[in-house]
Amino acid sequence: METTATDTRFIINLALSAWETQLERFDKHLEKLTDQQLESEIAPGRNRGVYILGHLTAVNDNFFPLFGLGEKVHPPLQDLFIRTPDRTVPIPTTAELRQCWHDVNAKLTPALRNLTPEEWLGKHTSVSAEDFAKEPHRNKLNVLLNRTSHQAYHYGQIVLL
Amino acid sequence: METTATDTRFIINLALSAWETQLERFDKHLEKLTDQQLESEIAPGRNRGVYILGHLTAVNDNFFPLFGLGEKVHPPLQDLFIRTPDRTVPIPTTAELRQCWHDVNAKLTPALRNLTPEEWLGKHTSVSAEDFAKEPHRNKLNVLLNRTSHQAYHYGQIVLL
Repeated sequence: METTATDTRFIINLALSAWETQLERFDKHLEKLTDQQLESEIAPGRNRGVYILGHLTAVNDNFFPLFGLGEKVHPPLQDLFIRTPDRTVPIPTTAELRQCWHDVNAKLTPALRNLTPEEWLGKHTSVSAEDFAKEPHRNKLNVLLNRTSHQAYHYGQIVLL
Repeated sequence: METTATDTRFIINLALSAWETQLERFDKHLEKLTDQQLESEIAPGRNRGVYILGHLTAVNDNFFPLFGLGEKVHPPLQDLFIRTPDRTVPIPTTAELRQCWHDVNAKLTPALRNLTPEEWLGKHTSVSAEDFAKEPHRNKLNVLLNRTSHQAYHYGQIVLL
C-alpha cells in the first residue's frame, strides 16, 4: 500500500482534531470552575488559573499574525500574559478573560480548518524564506503540533484547581 | 503545489519529533528532581510525582502490545499505575521506577522510528478490522498524537515539584 496526497489531508485532520480536543477539554473544565477557583494558584506559589487562561488566550491569538491569518483579536494580552509573569501588573477581570478566550477561539478554529495542506506545510511568518528552504520542518503544522502539547501542558495544571 | 507520499513520511516525522520532544523534556526534568522531591505531591492532596512517573511508564509500555511491537517490558506496572489510584497499594521504589522509565523508552523510541507510513496509518490492536474500515482515523498515528498530549499534560504537573 502506497501513501498518497489524500493521506496528507487525512493526517493533517488528525492533528487538527488532536488540537481541538485539547481546546474542548480545557474549555469544559473552565466552565466548571467558579471565578474564585480560577483566581487561585494551581499549586502553592505557582501561577493562578486566571493567568494560565490569559496566557493560552494570548498564545492562541498569536496564531493570526504567525499564520498570516490577519490581526490579533486582543493584542494587549501579549504583553500581559506572554512577556509578563503572573502578579506583577493588573490584568483584566476574570469575566473579561473568559470572554477573550471565547472570542479568540471562535475566530481561530474555522480559520485553521480552512488552511489547505499546502499552507500547513508552508512556512509561518517568523521564519525567513531562506531559513525555511534549509529547515522545511519549520512549517505551520509543526507549530500546531507544538501548541497542542503546550495547551495540554497547561490543561494538566488547570485541572488541579 | 501538490502534496505527495513524501509529505506523508515528512509529516509523520514531525509528529514523532513532537512526541520525542515531550519525552526528552520530561526526562530532563526527572533528572533534576531528587527522589524525595519526586515522592511529594504535585499539589496538596493530588498524585505524587512518583505515581505520575509510574503511570507514564505504564502507558508507554502499553504501546508494545497496542502497536503489535511485542510484549510489555514491565507488565506489572499496568495494574499499579493505570488501574489503581495513587497511595492505595505498595509500588516499586523510586530508583526502580526511574529504571523502568528508561528501560521502556530505550526500547520504544527506536521501535516507533522503525514503523513505516503504511503502518502508522494502519489499525492498532484494540480496534477490530470491521470498526477500522468504518473509522480509519483509529490508527497508530492518532494514538501517538493523543499520547503526546497526555505526556505533555503530566509534564505540566511534574514541573510543579
